[in-house]
Parts: sequence; structure tokens; C-alpha cells
Amino acid sequence: MVDRFFQPVSGMDLPRFAGVPSFMRLPHLGMDHPRIGDVQIGFVGLPWDGGVTNRSGARHGARQIRDLSTMVRAQHPVTGLRPFEAVNCADLGDVNPNPVDNGDTLRRFQDHFAGLRARGIRPIAVGGDHLCTLPILRALAADGPLGLVHFDSHTDLFPPYFGGSALTHGNPFRVAVEEGLLDPGRMVQIGIRGTMYDSADRDFARDHGIRIVTIEEMFDRGIPDVMAEAREIVGSGPAYLSYDIDFVDPSVAPGTGTPEWGGPNAYDAMCVVRECRGLNIVAADLVEVSPPLDPTGGTAWLAASLLFEILCVMVEAERKPTT
Amino acid sequence: MVDRFFQPVSGMDLPRFAGVPSFMRLPHLGMDHPRIGDVQIGFVGLPWDGGVTNRSGARHGARQIRDLSTMVRAQHPVTGLRPFEAVNCADLGDVNPNPVDNGDTLRRFQDHFAGLRARGIRPIAVGGDHLCTLPILRALAADGPLGLVHFDSHTDLFPPYFGGSALTHGNPFRVAVEEGLLDPGRMVQIGIRGTMYDSADRDFARDHGIRIVTIEEMFDRGIPDVMAEAREIVGSGPAYLSYDIDFVDPSVAPGTGTPEWGGPNAYDAMCVVRECRGLNIVAADLVEVSPPLDPTGGTAWLAASLLFEILCVMVEAERKPTT
Amino acid sequence: MVDRFFQPVSGMDLPRFAGVPSFMRLPHLGMDHPRIGDVQIGFVGLPWDGGVTNRSGARHGARQIRDLSTMVRAQHPVTGLRPFEAVNCADLGDVNPNPVDNGDTLRRFQDHFAGLRARGIRPIAVGGDHLCTLPILRALAADGPLGLVHFDSHTDLFPPYFGGSALTHGNPFRVAVEEGLLDPGRMVQIGIRGTMYDSADRDFARDHGIRIVTIEEMFDRGIPDVMAEAREIVGSGPAYLSYDIDFVDPSVAPGTGTPEWGGPNAYDAMCVVRECRGLNIVAADLVEVSPPLDPTGGTAWLAASLLFEILCVMVEAERKPTT
Amino acid sequence: MVDRFFQPVSGMDLPRFAGVPSFMRLPHLGMDHPRIGDVQIGFVGLPWDGGVTNRSGARHGARQIRDLSTMVRAQHPVTGLRPFEAVNCADLGDVNPNPVDNGDTLRRFQDHFAGLRARGIRPIAVGGDHLCTLPILRALAADGPLGLVHFDSHTDLFPPYFGGSALTHGNPFRVAVEEGLLDPGRMVQIGIRGTMYDSADRDFARDHGIRIVTIEEMFDRGIPDVMAEAREIVGSGPAYLSYDIDFVDPSVAPGTGTPEWGGPNAYDAMCVVRECRGLNIVAADLVEVSPPLDPTGGTAWLAASLLFEILCVMVEAERKPTT
Amino acid sequence: MVDRFFQPVSGMDLPRFAGVPSFMRLPHLGMDHPRIGDVQIGFVGLPWDGGVTNRSGARHGARQIRDLSTMVRAQHPVTGLRPFEAVNCADLGDVNPNPVDNGDTLRRFQDHFAGLRARGIRPIAVGGDHLCTLPILRALAADGPLGLVHFDSHTDLFPPYFGGSALTHGNPFRVAVEEGLLDPGRMVQIGIRGTMYDSADRDFARDHGIRIVTIEEMFDRGIPDVMAEAREIVGSGPAYLSYDIDFVDPSVAPGTGTPEWGGPNAYDAMCVVRECRGLNIVAADLVEVSPPLDPTGGTAWLAASLLFEILCVMVEAERKPTT
Amino acid sequence: MVDRFFQPVSGMDLPRFAGVPSFMRLPHLGMDHPRIGDVQIGFVGLPWDGGVTNRSGARHGARQIRDLSTMVRAQHPVTGLRPFEAVNCADLGDVNPNPVDNGDTLRRFQDHFAGLRARGIRPIAVGGDHLCTLPILRALAADGPLGLVHFDSHTDLFPPYFGGSALTHGNPFRVAVEEGLLDPGRMVQIGIRGTMYDSADRDFARDHGIRIVTIEEMFDRGIPDVMAEAREIVGSGPAYLSYDIDFVDPSVAPGTGTPEWGGPNAYDAMCVVRECRGLNIVAADLVEVSPPLDPTGGTAWLAASLLFEILCVMVEAERKPTT
Repeated sequence: MVDRFFQPVSGMDLPRFAGVPSFMRLPHLGMDHPRIGDVQIGFVGLPWDGGVTNRSGARHGARQIRDLSTMVRAQHPVTGLRPFEAVNCADLGDVNPNPVDNGDTLRRFQDHFAGLRARGIRPIAVGGDHLCTLPILRALAADGPLGLVHFDSHTDLFPPYFGGSALTHGNPFRVAVEEGLLDPGRMVQIGIRGTMYDSADRDFARDHGIRIVTIEEMFDRGIPDVMAEAREIVGSGPAYLSYDIDFVDPSVAPGTGTPEWGGPNAYDAMCVVRECRGLNIVAADLVEVSPPLDPTGGTAWLAASLLFEILCVMVEAERKPTT
Repeated sequence: MVDRFFQPVSGMDLPRFAGVPSFMRLPHLGMDHPRIGDVQIGFVGLPWDGGVTNRSGARHGARQIRDLSTMVRAQHPVTGLRPFEAVNCADLGDVNPNPVDNGDTLRRFQDHFAGLRARGIRPIAVGGDHLCTLPILRALAADGPLGLVHFDSHTDLFPPYFGGSALTHGNPFRVAVEEGLLDPGRMVQIGIRGTMYDSADRDFARDHGIRIVTIEEMFDRGIPDVMAEAREIVGSGPAYLSYDIDFVDPSVAPGTGTPEWGGPNAYDAMCVVRECRGLNIVAADLVEVSPPLDPTGGTAWLAASLLFEILCVMVEAERKPTT
Repeated sequence: MVDRFFQPVSGMDLPRFAGVPSFMRLPHLGMDHPRIGDVQIGFVGLPWDGGVTNRSGARHGARQIRDLSTMVRAQHPVTGLRPFEAVNCADLGDVNPNPVDNGDTLRRFQDHFAGLRARGIRPIAVGGDHLCTLPILRALAADGPLGLVHFDSHTDLFPPYFGGSALTHGNPFRVAVEEGLLDPGRMVQIGIRGTMYDSADRDFARDHGIRIVTIEEMFDRGIPDVMAEAREIVGSGPAYLSYDIDFVDPSVAPGTGTPEWGGPNAYDAMCVVRECRGLNIVAADLVEVSPPLDPTGGTAWLAASLLFEILCVMVEAERKPTT
Repeated sequence: MVDRFFQPVSGMDLPRFAGVPSFMRLPHLGMDHPRIGDVQIGFVGLPWDGGVTNRSGARHGARQIRDLSTMVRAQHPVTGLRPFEAVNCADLGDVNPNPVDNGDTLRRFQDHFAGLRARGIRPIAVGGDHLCTLPILRALAADGPLGLVHFDSHTDLFPPYFGGSALTHGNPFRVAVEEGLLDPGRMVQIGIRGTMYDSADRDFARDHGIRIVTIEEMFDRGIPDVMAEAREIVGSGPAYLSYDIDFVDPSVAPGTGTPEWGGPNAYDAMCVVRECRGLNIVAADLVEVSPPLDPTGGTAWLAASLLFEILCVMVEAERKPTT
Repeated sequence: MVDRFFQPVSGMDLPRFAGVPSFMRLPHLGMDHPRIGDVQIGFVGLPWDGGVTNRSGARHGARQIRDLSTMVRAQHPVTGLRPFEAVNCADLGDVNPNPVDNGDTLRRFQDHFAGLRARGIRPIAVGGDHLCTLPILRALAADGPLGLVHFDSHTDLFPPYFGGSALTHGNPFRVAVEEGLLDPGRMVQIGIRGTMYDSADRDFARDHGIRIVTIEEMFDRGIPDVMAEAREIVGSGPAYLSYDIDFVDPSVAPGTGTPEWGGPNAYDAMCVVRECRGLNIVAADLVEVSPPLDPTGGTAWLAASLLFEILCVMVEAERKPTT
Repeated sequence: MVDRFFQPVSGMDLPRFAGVPSFMRLPHLGMDHPRIGDVQIGFVGLPWDGGVTNRSGARHGARQIRDLSTMVRAQHPVTGLRPFEAVNCADLGDVNPNPVDNGDTLRRFQDHFAGLRARGIRPIAVGGDHLCTLPILRALAADGPLGLVHFDSHTDLFPPYFGGSALTHGNPFRVAVEEGLLDPGRMVQIGIRGTMYDSADRDFARDHGIRIVTIEEMFDRGIPDVMAEAREIVGSGPAYLSYDIDFVDPSVAPGTGTPEWGGPNAYDAMCVVRECRGLNIVAADLVEVSPPLDPTGGTAWLAASLLFEILCVMVEAERKPTT
């Protein structure tokens, strides 16, 4: 039974450039809305870039992605899935950050996602920089470490920056492993490339058994083969999907703070998500979209398109009994 | 008594770049919302540019103005007025246009504003191109012609274009006079400039007694003097305020389809609205903001700032008994 | 015998950024020019986007493509063909649209192309949005339906929009089939992708025997294989080539109103045209280039490059006896 | 008697964004056109920036100004003059530069303007950088030195650059005085400002009796007073008007290579030309528009608007007996 | 005696677009350079925007201002001062911020400016956001509170944000007064405008005797009159000059995070600095230039031009005995 | 032994957007610096585009590449090479061009590179347009012709332009062969594509035995196979690597004056350099980056990434005995 309340506005009725822009044109619900209890998958904006060590702007990501996401339609072109009819989806608004206090923000985010978890809502977080992932994991891994499928050009397993700062967008997965939020044996990082400071991040991965697939390996073996291995690694347990937009080549996604040349094109960028079908994705994020660095808004439009792909994978997981 | 429901979100709580963007961060109400009956002044988006004869893009105006309007705060810097506390304001969303059928769109718009009028809501329409003004006037002038204070670089009193089309963004005030929606003796057009096709529009103005203040006259006499005359002309009866963003110099407001050099700067652009205090403005519009022509978004930010000025004038009128 | 009159200016003589920009630097001829009778292939600008349901700007396409087309040189790099020496080509200017009256514009366009047909000029239309194709087909299919090779991310076979509007840029091929202008059995649509409203367009295709090649199929089989099938379908009869720039990936062609991620790169975008050699293309269009959405002008430069490829295919067809 | 051949296309017939763009939508005539003998005032493009010592791009100026000039209409808003009906105007195309050989280019330009002079055509040159002025003066001052009214932020009276190069865009007026092409006692330079290398240019002016009006003096005295003096200085003899777009403040005209803050706004930028009425302007130029430095195209649109003002002054001079 | 070592490269020798860009093309000296002891005025970059509560990007300010500052020449156009010959100036590089730890950064900045003070170098700090001013004041006010001349559209006297954060770019002058770093009786804030949260900042000013000149007052009285009062207020004691680029109208300086419409134009923006002649400015800053928000780089070019004006005022103060 | 003096600043210490930007954050040394004798590989900026026949702007290339190159880190992701530790690298600044005198500039450049050769410094030149290569070759080929591996979309073997100019960016390799600076039998040009004037360049190549690999051949055979042949052709003798950024597809590198569609993506753009390992590259250049044509700066970031790849190949060659 399709719940009309949770259906997005159609571009056949209201042109896609019109209307107050919510994610995918879904209803925008505050946490005190009477229908909040019926939401199954919620988009959550994280307008914050306090973890950025390089070029900023990701604080504007969620809003611009909302804007461009109004061009998304209702049906997947390959599978035919109509996700908004299959499960109840909503735009849950943004979580209030404190732009001048990282510690405060991390607490606010963690509390918010703990609240969603308590309600049984599977979140799709829209960043924001990659440090956003850490408080989400802290909220969601309360019952045990999660698996991780991670698309990125960087491992984000780096040691502290600037003489001792361990909480930046370059460290979240290192910290999450150290805090026991992720199961390193169920982690895979795909698309890694770019010049390196040194080998500290890769040493950490090797020491903890984290699987890194460089871009060279991905292109050599092909996406289907790599993703088959990724599904094997992550297994059937609850898993987190983290998609840093700088996974994609900067010619496709210029709007990001730390781009690295030599990444996949848009077709491959979508294919890797489609290959996550079958995983039990309990939460996901898409991060590091920085609108001020993208004069056309194309990066946000790609992000919206990828969010639809992520949503479809999660809808399929939601409909099956979870472990 | 301040009604908390109708207060905008403060940038001291949620940073101004965050959140789903509604006009001025006001609550976004559909026409079926339980509080709709309490709205006194409503912002209405008109995402349509079907009347444009030149460069388009104004269909995107309302959305980008919403986005930038989240930088507006709660108090007027000169008068100290706190408009959102004085009257109940809301974002009433966009009216559905039909982008490929101008006649259909004009009917839809007229019907919508007739509905607002029936509810006693004073509308501030956010265009959209200048043809949007016509269906609003058709809806609101049901009891008799209105006065008009009109800021623009063009008179929009032109005869038909393209071999006979009389419903374009160059004609609305000619048609409105012909239809008896405006009282030509209570009309004033300020800021007129730019190369001319011929003198047909000015002949029409002269023949009907419409007062045109060219930019040369405005700069020569000064704004206070010109606006004193304008208030005299418009008088105390119900009046409409129409603000075409191309009134402002293109160095300040490049994001518009038919810019004309030699207009006022931003300070003057705001002053002319402040000088409308005392008029009984029953409805207003701000039109012709075309985001694709403005890489910085500054034009939309100016538009949002002007809308706040317009709102303050209307709030003061709302609080006084109207004639 | 090369006709000097019809040769473009060389960049070795006048730098390519100089001069009044006509298509390919060809002579610009009005319909009353004394040499009009000698034109064999004519570029025709259609500065109109009245059929657009989403983001506009294609009205500016023809002019910016003219501008960038002055970087095209005289010889094809692979075949060695020198098209301007092989047949007489010209820039025939723009057809006057009526930007505020779609019905009027459709009539004007149809009349114009009927006139070209009467003179035996094969047109290459430069849009403008995809609704432009409909009046061209109405003019050219007077003797019977044409075949179609169609590159696009959308089928443009959609049912009416906005409560009943069947003449938008989303409907031209549906209407053309219904009006008998195209032979559905000789139609192929290549590159189709993107989220879907529903399956109505694909149902129409299936019911009428129109062949759709999705982007997934195109990438899986490869362009040579797909295009061999396309040539088979279209056959040796007169055919129309329609190229929507949104066929190409948005990273390559951001300047279009309804981009869909996951399309071909520039090399493939040119290859598909080269693979049309052998078809009897009697007319063609390239549509949906929207300059305001492309800060670098790259999309128009790609369009100009594709127009050269299309021209070369048509020149080869022109030189052979047609069926 | 108005000559229909020389009338521009009206935006009431063909929308202003449409058509092959010539200056002001005038007929585009080559020097071998049958009507060339009837041209009285001709716009000439100079697509060259070989004299630039700083940021380049002025080679693209003429084309972009053509593009934007299609928004100019037929009648002056203040005087009511309809210049295209008063004298025969045309777009005479671009003069071929040699982008890699400055000496060759200077000769080509001089020859071309000598040819126009022989035909009695008064040229309005559209640059290109300010060195373009020198070959024009060499061609036109054959019978004796001209007067000069010069709007600029720089005197362009500098000594040689880079260890001995005297032919750059910083030197044309120094060289012209030295070559006897200009009468220093009839020269006035208005708007001069910006940080200085040293005082060499002002010393040259003082030594030769050239009048420099700094921006400080212009703002202190006001434009009418300054321009009255300028008319006095230039007198009734034949005079040249040279307008460097960097005269205008960079907020208004960012598209230029060497902008200097603190210049006039657009209104004043037009007023100074209007105040040239009564001078016997036999030729003029507008230079230093650099499109790659202006994302909105506004600078070119201002340039087109200024060219219309210049044209009107020249038309009035053309209609009166010259000294 | 001019010290050749401290002279900037001339654009007559190396074109202004060439070379590694240091501030004003001055020598770039680290703190361990052998000539550091001879520096009298040093430009210091502060690449940090950790205090921003709204749109960020000021971390990129110092670098882009360096880039554009290479267009500054050696001599003041009005006074004739050649500042680089009068005192020894240098680019002292950037101070290392910690982009993810505001407390750490504030300490680093304070320590650095304390070191400059110990060496007797008068700093001109180039931000960075306005919170940068606080650690500078903490370092420089060791011997007693300073006077302040402050150009801005905001008072930056606000109470804490986001539920208790008092160290943002909206608070530095409130905190500085509370810490006794500034003498409120010798403070003047000029150009204040824009919508207000409430009156808390103005109440603080009134209670402490800080003089606020709103933009309305500035325009009404004129700059000379206002600045005469400002000099009176600040007096002859050591004073700090703080210039927030958002003092200037957004049409002139779009590249800033919190623009407010209705500010001065570029001419006035420079005049207010010139009117500071006679003050004993011991240190200065120019802050809030955000390059990602300015597609043309014009804001940084204005900032560089203003820095030259500030430098000239400080050079004149440096040459006179200080109180 | 790593020489600390020659190590770049780490982004772990100073954020990558901070500091005065030198190439790769290396020390910036003038030719009179005491450590100049220890430099092994030097980056040299050539801020000049006097050879450009089409769209200019490459004069700004070196500076913007310096800016973006501060995002490069210290270690190669595939080979693990840490080039800055392996050999002493430095930024040697820009060579002074004369922007208005091509002959003078060519002499200055040649003299400068002769000086580097005398000191035994292997240069990596950063353009600037492709004519820059000629004076470098003139300086470096004093002992005999060099081999060449050349990535480009154009052969740059064209005959003279504009009626006789043989020294443009379209001719350097033709002239170099004619002057005996290159050994045509050891030359390979890869990636050639785009419409052609005629076949004059390819005839020259065939007549002299220069190997041209078109883009079609490169894509058909694959990069490893093509590059194996390239290494075979160039052999073990001293060779020059010339990389024109327009080798890369314009979707990836829009910031160049003469882009040609259908080139390689960023991954392939880097791979071709990696496949040069084993060649004895004694000098290299990267040219034709034109920042004004690239709103995002992405082209310069790609150029910086490619320069790192080129550096790594040269470091490996430097460490081995040369022939």
C-alpha cells in the first residue's frame, strides 16, 4: 500500500525548478511531526565543514543537493524500483551544527542520530565533510561494530594533523576503528589514489586488516569483480555505506575540497552503488560536496543522483529481514 | 502578542546557510494548513518566465531568493520594526505554472491570488517575470482599480510584440490600464531609462495621465523629493507596489534579463522603498530576478533585502486602519 | 569544382576569435540572397525554448554555437573529407520565433522548413529545445514518414505534462509518430537513461515497435555493434538525425536543461555520428544547448564539433543518389 | 529620407537574443559591398591585444560587444535622436590582425583606416587594446593633428616598458604626440587614477600642455563643469574620442585587463559622453574590453551602451557642417 | 636612503601577472631571515576562517590578495608618497593556523604578533575572518588599551552565538573591550547597516561609550565630516585600524561571507582610509575577503588597493614620532 | 641523505591553502641564491603567450599552477617514490618575458635555459604557450638534437600563419626540426586529433619520419602498447618531454586556448607519463594552461598533478647514469 503522504511531488505537476526544495521533493518533517513515527528512511542534512583541513564549503552541501535533487524522478531506470512507494521516506531537515565549536557539533550530531536509531529510522546523511561520519557511527554502532563499504580517493585513516589534531576529515575511519565502531575485517575502501603524505594510513589499514582497493586495481579488474569481493568482505551483517564525492573524477565532480585526478566517470560512480545490492546497508552518507567550488552545480546534481542510487539499495535492504 | 509559530528561525540558533530554505526562514504553509487562516502577509513564489521577450531565467527567481533570504534577520536597522512579531507572515509556497501554456498559467495565477484575497491575506509575490503582475491585479482589483508605485527601468506600457502578442512582460501595465485594474491617475513609474524602440509607451502614459519619472529626473531632484510626489500621486487609497529588479543598476543586479545601465545603487534601491512608508500597500511584487545570469547570487540577495523593506512598509500599512 | 563563394574563412588568415560569427564561418545568406538557389546544405538557427518543461536557456543555443563554431577547420581528421569543398554549405540565419506564443512559433518554423524543402536545401537545424524537431518533421515528411536515428538521454515519448500539454520538449517523437511523420519501425533511440517518471514512454515505444537502446546496453555491447544495428533499423530510406546534447555526459556537456549522469564521453559522442555513415540523412538537428548553464562555453564548442561530424555524414549522403 | 537598408533589426520583430550578431544589428558590409559608398559611420572591430602589458583578452572584445549590442534599441531616451535614421550606419566587420606580429598588425590597421578615410566614412573602432588607437590616428591625422577627448584611468603617456618597448597599450598618446598626430593643446584626459609607477607620464603631460583631470578633480567639480572645460580645450576642430572601458569603476566594468578602483558609475560613464555634444568628433574608439575577465558579459553590454551614446554624438556632428 | 632590498619588483620590468606572488611584490621574509631586523612594516597573512558563523572562504583571502596585489604600483596618486622607499616593508608570510582547533589557532596568532611586537615591526594583517583581530589585539595591547577606527557593516559586538559561543567573527570587539584591549572611549565604528538580530550590540556600544556611525549617518553627513569626528575620537594615541571588506557595498566587493547591501562605492571605500591620515596607526588588518564567493577576483583586487592606502597612512605615522 | 633545505612544506603542518605559493611548496630560489649550485631539477615559470594564434591566457598559467600545486603531497601513490628526497628540487621563479616583443622574449628565454644548462640543472618549464618550447630546445640542443615524446592534440608542425609568420604556437616542432634541434627519427607525437586546416603538417611528419599517433590509434591499441612503441622510438638518448594540456579532453582540462574534443580522461592523462619511465628525460615542459578560460581552476590542478608525474620520471632518470 502506497502511503500518499510520503510521495514526492511530480515534475509532471509542478515543474522541477519550482517549490520549496526538500530532498527528492519529499515531505519535510521535523522530529515533532505527527507522521515521524512512520518514517522508515530519512534524509538528514549536516551543514557543517568543521573537520576540513583543506578547502572548505561543504557546509553548503546539503542545501544545494536539496535544490538539485528536485530533478530526481520516481523510478529506477534499470531495476524499475519505485523506492518512494516501497518504503516511507522523508526529508528530516538539518541537524544544528555549531560552526565554531567542533566538539559541541560532534555531540549534537551523535545525539541526533541516536534519536533516529531509537525511532528505527534508517538515515541517509548528506554532508558536510567526512568528519560527519564519526558521530553517526558513534550513534549507530552502539550494539557492535558495523561493516563498511567506503568510496573515496582518500583512506581517511591518517594520523593527527597540525601537531596533534585527531578529529579532522582525514581521520574518521582511523578513530572509528580505534573506538570499535567499525569491524576492520568487514571494511573495504575503494578508489584510493592521489599523492601521499607518507604510508601511515596504509600501514594502519594493513595492520588492522582493512582492505584497500586502489583506483589502479579497480580499473584493472573492473567494477563487477571488485564489488563482488567488496560484498564478500562486508558480508551479510549490518553495514554502513560512506560515499565521499571525491571518489569521482574532478572533471565530473569539481565541487569538492580535496579533489584527486584519475577517478571514475559518472557511469562508474553510479555502478559501484548498484553493485552494493544485497548488502544490508543500515545507514549511509554522501559527503564533501562543496558548492562554492562548483560554478555549475553539477556536483550537487551528481550527488542527488547518487543519493537516489543509495536509497534504492537501502530500500531493497529495508524490505528484507535484517540480521 | 507575538505568535511563536510565525517567527523565523534565528541565525543565532541555526546558521543561516542551514535548513530547508523558505522565504525569510518563515514557516512554509500550504493552503490547507490549519494555521493558514491566521496569516496576514504571505510570500508567494511565481516560478515562471513565459512572458519574457528577451533573456529568460526568471522562472528560477523564487527559489534562489528563498535561498538567499535566509540571511535576513528580524529587525529593521533604521526604524527598529520587528515585522515578524508585528503581523503573522508565512511562506505560502509556489503557485504551479504551466511552463508551456501562457494562457493556462495566467488563469492559474489569477485563481490563486483570488483565493488569497478571499482569505484576507496580503500577498508579496516573488517572480517570475513582469507579466506575473497582470493576473495578480486581475485578482485583486475586483472592487475597483488600484494605485501603483512602480520601480523599473522600463514602463512596460508597450504595444504588442512579434506581430501581435499583447501579453508579454513588456505590456502588463498597458493591459491593466486598458482592463481598468489600475487607476492611471494614481500611477507613478520611477527610474525609466535605456534606449527606446520608439515613443509609443510614453505616448500611452501621457494620454492616460500616468506619471513617468525618468532616471535623469530622479537623480536631478533626489529621491526624497521624487518620492514625496509619488506618495501624493498614489494617495491614501489601496495601492500596489511593483518592483522590477532591473530598476537597479546592472552593476548591482546583473541577474536580470533586460538590464539597462545607469540605474541607482543599492542604497538608493532600498531608500525608494523606505520612502513608501505611509502608502496603503495592499499587495506587492518583486520580479525579473534571473539566477542563471548572476554567478554570485548577489541579485537574489539584493532581492531578499528589498523584500524585507517592502514587508516592513506593508506591515506598517497592515497595522493601520485601511481606507 | 570548388565554389569559392561557399568556402569558410580560414583561421590561417583571420584568427578564429575574429569576425562576425556565422556557423563554421560560412557565408550568411538570407532567403532572398542571389546565391540561395545554389545552397545544398544549410545551417538554420532556432532561437527558441518554448517547449522546455524544466530549466531553460536553449533560446541562446544557436548564437553561442555560431560563436564557438568559428574554431572548426576545413578537413575531417579521420576521413580526410573537406565538406565545404564537396557541397555548397551556408548559414541561413535564424528563423523568427515568437517567444510568448508556442503555437505561432511552431507554425513559423514549419513554414520555414517547408520553404527550404521546396528549394531542395537539406537543413541542419541548431536549437533551441527538442520541441523544435516537431515542426521540422511536419515540413519534411510531406511525402511520407521518415526514419530516425536519435541520440538522447530521454525518449521524448512522454504523455502530456501539467495536466494536458502535449506539445513540450518531452513529447515531440510521440506526437510525430501519432501524426505519421516518423516510421516507428525505422526509429532507434540511443543513450536512454536517468530516473523515470514511470514506464509510459517505454510502453509507447514497445507498442509501436520503436527500438530503444539504453545507455547500459550501449556500453555493454559497444558503439560499433549498436550502431550497426541502428543502421539496419533505419535502412536506406530517407532519415532524420536528431542529436540532443544531453545524450552526452553532463561532465562533458553541462550546458543543458535536463542533464542525466552516466552518459558517453566526448570521443564516443563523436563516434556515434561517424557510425551513421551510409545512412541517407536528409535533415538533422542538434538541440538543447543552454549557454546560461555553461560558464565555459564548452558545451557549445562540443555542439559545433558534433555539427561538423553531422555535416560530414550528410555531405557523403548528398553526394550519393538518394532513394 | 530614411534608408531602409541601413536600419537595424527590431527586437519587436526578431527577439534580441536571436540572429547573427552584428554591431547594433546593423547590416554587415565588407569593403567590396555595393552599398559601401553610402556608409557614413562605420563600426569596425579590432580583434587584437598585442599591445597589452598586463592581463590580456581584449582580442575577444569586438565579438562579445557585437553579441551584447543586439540589445540596443533605436532611439535615445533623452534626446529622442534616432541615429540610424539620421545617418547611414553599418558594421564593417573586423580588420585582420596578425596576433604574433605587432608591427605587421599596426600596418594593417593603419592601411584599413586610411581606406575608410578615403571613402569619407567616420569610423567607430571597437577594440582591442589601447594600442589600437595609434594606427587609427596615423591614418586619420594625415592633414594635421587632431584634438582628443580621452576617458581613462590611465594617461597612456608612459615611457617605454620592459627595457625599451615604446609600442604598448601604455604609450599610444605619448607616441601620437611625438609623431604630431594629436595637438597636445587640444587634448584632455579625464578620470585618471590608480597607483603610479612614477611621475613620468604626468611630467610629459605638463611639458606638452596636455590637460589631465584626475578622478578626484572630476568628482569634486562635477561632470558638467569638467566637461565644459573639456569642450573648451578641444574646441571646434576635428577631434577624436577615445574611451577606455577602465575609465569606469571595476564594479561596473570588471572585464578589463588593468582595472583601477574608484571610478565613475554607469550613469556618469554615459553622462560624460552625452556632454561631448557639440564637439566635432570625426572618429572614436572604445577599447580594453576583455571578455574572459567578465563572467556575466556586463562589461560588453556597458560598452555597447556607450557605443550608442558615442554614435549619437557623432551623428549630431555628422549632420552639421564640419570645420 | 632607499634600501634596495626592500623595493618591490616593477611592472615595467617583470609584467604584473608574472612571478611568485608576495604582497605588493615585496621580498618574502621568514622570521629567521637575516634582514628581518630591518623590517618596519610587515604584511602578515592569516589563512583562517574558524570564527565564521555564516558563509566561509576567508581562509583563502590572504593568498588571493597576494596574487592581485602584484598589480599595485609604487606611488600614491594623490599624495605622491612612495611608501616602499620611505620605510622598509616586507611580506612576512602566513601564520600557521590550525583549521580544526580555534583555541589553538588563537594562541598561535597571539604568539606570532607578540613576536612582531617584540621586534618593533608594525603589522598589517591580511585575513582571514574578523575573529583574527582578537589575538592581534591581545598581543599588541600589552601596555594598555588601543584606540580603534573600524570600517564594517557590522559592529561585531554581538553576544555569544549558538547557545554560548563567544569567540566568533561576530564578537571580537565585545570581547576586546571586556578584556581591556581597546579603550571604548577611543573607538569608532563606521558604516554599520543591515538587518539586525536585535539591539544587543548597540546597547553594548551605548553602555560602553563606543561611537557607532551608521551608513545612513555617513551618507547624510559626508565622509570628511564623519572622519573628522573619528579622528577626534581616536585621538593621538596608538590606534588600531580594522577594515572589514563587507564595509563596502556587495556590488563592489561580492567576495565576502556576510554582505550587506547599501554600502559605499570603491571611491568612498578608499577615501575613508585617506581620511585616517594623522592618526597614529600602530597596526591594522583587512579581513573577510572570501575568494570562493567572487568569480572575478575583484574583491581581492580592491582589498589590495585598500591595503596600499592603509600602508600609506601607516608609513606617514611611522615617520613621525609617536606618542 | 635527504637535504632538508629542499623539502616542501607539508600540508600536515601548514594547511595547503596557506603560504606564499611556490611550485610544489618548494623553496623559491633566484639564480643568485647561495644554494642554486645544489639544485638538480628546477621548475621554471614562463609567463608568456605571445605565440598564441587563437584564444590567449596562457601567460597566467605558471602562477595559477603554482597556486594549485600546493595541494601536491610528497610521495607517489603507485611507485612510492619520494622525489623531493631523492633529488634536490626548487622553484626557480619566472623568466622575464617581453609581452609586446616576441623576438626579444625568445632570446631572453633561450639565454635563461642556456644558463640552467651551464649549471647542470634539469628544467621543468611551466608555460606559457607552446612556442615556449622552441627557445628551450635552442638552449638545450647545443650538443646535438634531442629525442621527443610529445603529448598534444595538435602536431604543431604547421607552416607559417597569417601570411608568413613561422614563429607561433603552431610551429615550434617544425622549426625545431628545421634547425636541427630535434632528431625527427626519435620523435613521437601522441593524441593528435581535431579538424584540420589541410594535410601540410602530416606531410611534413611523413617526409621527415616523425611518428604521429592519432587519438583513434591510441584508443584502439591502448596506452601500454602505444607507449612501448614510443619508448622504442625515443630510445635511450637524451630526450625532451613536451606536454600540451590540450592533449587531455576539454571536459577535464577546459582551461586552454585551442581545445579539441575526444581526448583522454585524467587517468589516461597521467598514465601516459608513467609509461615514460625508463626514458632519459633531460628536460620537460607543460604548456597551454589558460586560467581565464577555466572558472574552477581544475585545469591548473591537473597540470600540477601531471608535473608531479613528470618530475617522478625525471627523478628516476636523474638517478641513473645518463648517456
